[in-house]
Amino acid sequence: MVMSDHSPVMDTTTLRINSDRLWDDFLVLSQIGATSAGGVSRPALSLEDLEARAWFADCVEEAGFFVKDDDAGNLSGVWFSDAPNAKTMIIGSHLDTVPNGGRYDGAIGVLAALEVARTLRDAGIELPFHLEVIDFTDEEGTWFSLLGSRGLTARIAMNRLATVSGADGAFRAALARAGINVEHIHRANRDPETVCGFIELHIEQGGTLDRLGVPVGIVDGIVGRATNQLTFRGESGHSGTTDLYRRKDALQGAALFVTRAHMLAHDRFDGTVVNCGGLEVYPGTFNVIPERATLLVECRHVESDKLIEIEAQLLEIAEECASSYGLRMEHKRVEYMDAAIMHTDIVSAIQTSCEQLELSYRMTTSYAGHDAQPMSKFTRAGMIFIPSVNGISHTPEEFTNWEDVVAGANVLLHSILLLAAGAPPR
Amino acid sequence: MVMSDHSPVMDTTTLRINSDRLWDDFLVLSQIGATSAGGVSRPALSLEDLEARAWFADCVEEAGFFVKDDDAGNLSGVWFSDAPNAKTMIIGSHLDTVPNGGRYDGAIGVLAALEVARTLRDAGIELPFHLEVIDFTDEEGTWFSLLGSRGLTARIAMNRLATVSGADGAFRAALARAGINVEHIHRANRDPETVCGFIELHIEQGGTLDRLGVPVGIVDGIVGRATNQLTFRGESGHSGTTDLYRRKDALQGAALFVTRAHMLAHDRFDGTVVNCGGLEVYPGTFNVIPERATLLVECRHVESDKLIEIEAQLLEIAEECASSYGLRMEHKRVEYMDAAIMHTDIVSAIQTSCEQLELSYRMTTSYAGHDAQPMSKFTRAGMIFIPSVNGISHTPEEFTNWEDVVAGANVLLHSILLLAAGAPPR
Repeated sequence: MVMSDHSPVMDTTTLRINSDRLWDDFLVLSQIGATSAGGVSRPALSLEDLEARAWFADCVEEAGFFVKDDDAGNLSGVWFSDAPNAKTMIIGSHLDTVPNGGRYDGAIGVLAALEVARTLRDAGIELPFHLEVIDFTDEEGTWFSLLGSRGLTARIAMNRLATVSGADGAFRAALARAGINVEHIHRANRDPETVCGFIELHIEQGGTLDRLGVPVGIVDGIVGRATNQLTFRGESGHSGTTDLYRRKDALQGAALFVTRAHMLAHDRFDGTVVNCGGLEVYPGTFNVIPERATLLVECRHVESDKLIEIEAQLLEIAEECASSYGLRMEHKRVEYMDAAIMHTDIVSAIQTSCEQLELSYRMTTSYAGHDAQPMSKFTRAGMIFIPSVNGISHTPEEFTNWEDVVAGANVLLHSILLLAAGAPPR
Repeated sequence: MVMSDHSPVMDTTTLRINSDRLWDDFLVLSQIGATSAGGVSRPALSLEDLEARAWFADCVEEAGFFVKDDDAGNLSGVWFSDAPNAKTMIIGSHLDTVPNGGRYDGAIGVLAALEVARTLRDAGIELPFHLEVIDFTDEEGTWFSLLGSRGLTARIAMNRLATVSGADGAFRAALARAGINVEHIHRANRDPETVCGFIELHIEQGGTLDRLGVPVGIVDGIVGRATNQLTFRGESGHSGTTDLYRRKDALQGAALFVTRAHMLAHDRFDGTVVNCGGLEVYPGTFNVIPERATLLVECRHVESDKLIEIEAQLLEIAEECASSYGLRMEHKRVEYMDAAIMHTDIVSAIQTSCEQLELSYRMTTSYAGHDAQPMSKFTRAGMIFIPSVNGISHTPEEFTNWEDVVAGANVLLHSILLLAAGAPPR
């Protein structure tokens, strides 16, 4: 790292982002897709999302960075380094939200990254790598979970995308609206050799940092997730007259599974998380024995081999629950995201940055999926968490104290400086 | 009972219904609303149901009986007695079906009743009561369970009907299509003093008679039914990041309830039947903790006081399941049908009739609701069950051997003869 020729030699340890400039950006962005409840709705590729992206491109241009977009719809501002053979350090997150979501999730990571780049540029610092501020497409999975970061890292099975787009006209229309051609998404793949790291600032979405009063979480790993659709099939029949011993009640099998699946997670006591988020019963009327019950069950674990083991155990339990009631059970894996380990270089840089800034921190595992997950399979990746008040997210009530946002952005700033200087071994 | 002047004195014990004439009617009726799967769809007040009613009215006229309809949409053929101060004996069932139902449920009871009246008339018999062959409106509850029989017996809370009709434009339209005015349904109420009994022939819908090879079931009672909608309310949240100890997962409460409700029924071992027929989860996606789970639970028992007791126990269990997971639970009784005891006069007549016809029979409790239920609160009522092959009903596969239909119709015929003679004490 060198200072520009025209800037005085400075002590970068006192460098701080411009809180007011970041705040102004935050206020403007929060108005795009704002809901009356005080949140925002910017589902990926919606008109609101596209408006946010257009605004972001304007910010990038205004800052004097290069506006770059790729075939997966990722939108970036690149500040090129003059260093020979420079690779690219990527920082950012996503501007899309869940429907009726909050103002911080994703957005704050993109805005902080942009502010960090501006701060470094304003300070006249020259980095040994290109610095790319990125907004990833559809992190929330409105259409295809982590579309942008999976596209960039070549982690999309093209046949799956083809199936989705073939089956779903609304998705095709949304892609067309954003100028994305499914056939060309693979062109967004980057050569890992050209990238030297990725850091994402994000709200924690859980309540631990807030409860402990710790301003920074340093992510050591992101849980993997396996989601299965289980279908229990029995026989419908008159709810009063069908002989008790002849009943094959699909809901009884599904209900027992829900109870036992959660017992499994509790019994393991090792960070296993299970959720049964959806259950549909057919035909669903009070006086007919349920013929079919379709359940969505996901499990999460930070270790890939344990995740696979838990998924297998859940399917075994489902088989047992089905056979207890004379049912057939079918399962289909609808989503699988591998667990991810954050890179020690990045983790160390974030840790040293916190120490320099005299901010307390906590090593933590992310139980939510993030763009850093595919990115970690591709380059050195790390994440900085800032507190979510009461652990609330994905709702209009999502809130982070502004001083925590600023602190997190400064941690990102100094992590970049440390990485630029060649992060010292700890 | 006297023979007509113009008929020779005959031994009525040899009288039998005309199987071919009944078969011809059955074939024609089965074509109205016929489905490709071999069943019929004649939901109450549908065009198919109205077509079946029009055809039935033609049959009544052709037989020379009086076509009568009332303000609850009940349609009858009345064969008037010349006896002074004659009351009315009602026989019949319903022509409506569940969607995609079978050919026998309800229909066979109306057709057999018509055939019995024709047989008696053809034999020149004079009855001491008017004989009314009835098709009740909406037995299956497409719009309002047992609308016709509850209307006739003044067992509809008018405020409930007003609510239903006010809320549901489709129901209003269906009523209008059938010429029924909600405000006038009360005019269908009969004076119990004018009615001397009711007998309904119906398929069993369970598999007991078929399994035991017994052609006739004599119903001693019909289970009452209490149906409640239970709503478990928790808190939605991110399925991965929400602290385990903070989760309030509505589906976990509902699932435990399903298991425990069925355990209650099994533990009682006294004819208690429980069904959880519907369960809806909100928001219902794999990665959000369920905030709300709405369950439909019904219980059935042939003794009213036990029914009430079981309902209370189910609500208690629901409270326990809710509090186990930190949930709130709300309940709403959406349906209550009192248990019904069949009248000994009618039961005895059916029994003697079986003995005269040398048909084996079995006393049985009906676990399905029937028009005989409200009718039993109003007059002497009884039911004759005939076997359902494999206990199947409410599907196109519903089937009863024709000889069993004929046997059942003859039991009805002789029950009427015995009641006309003043059924002998047994």
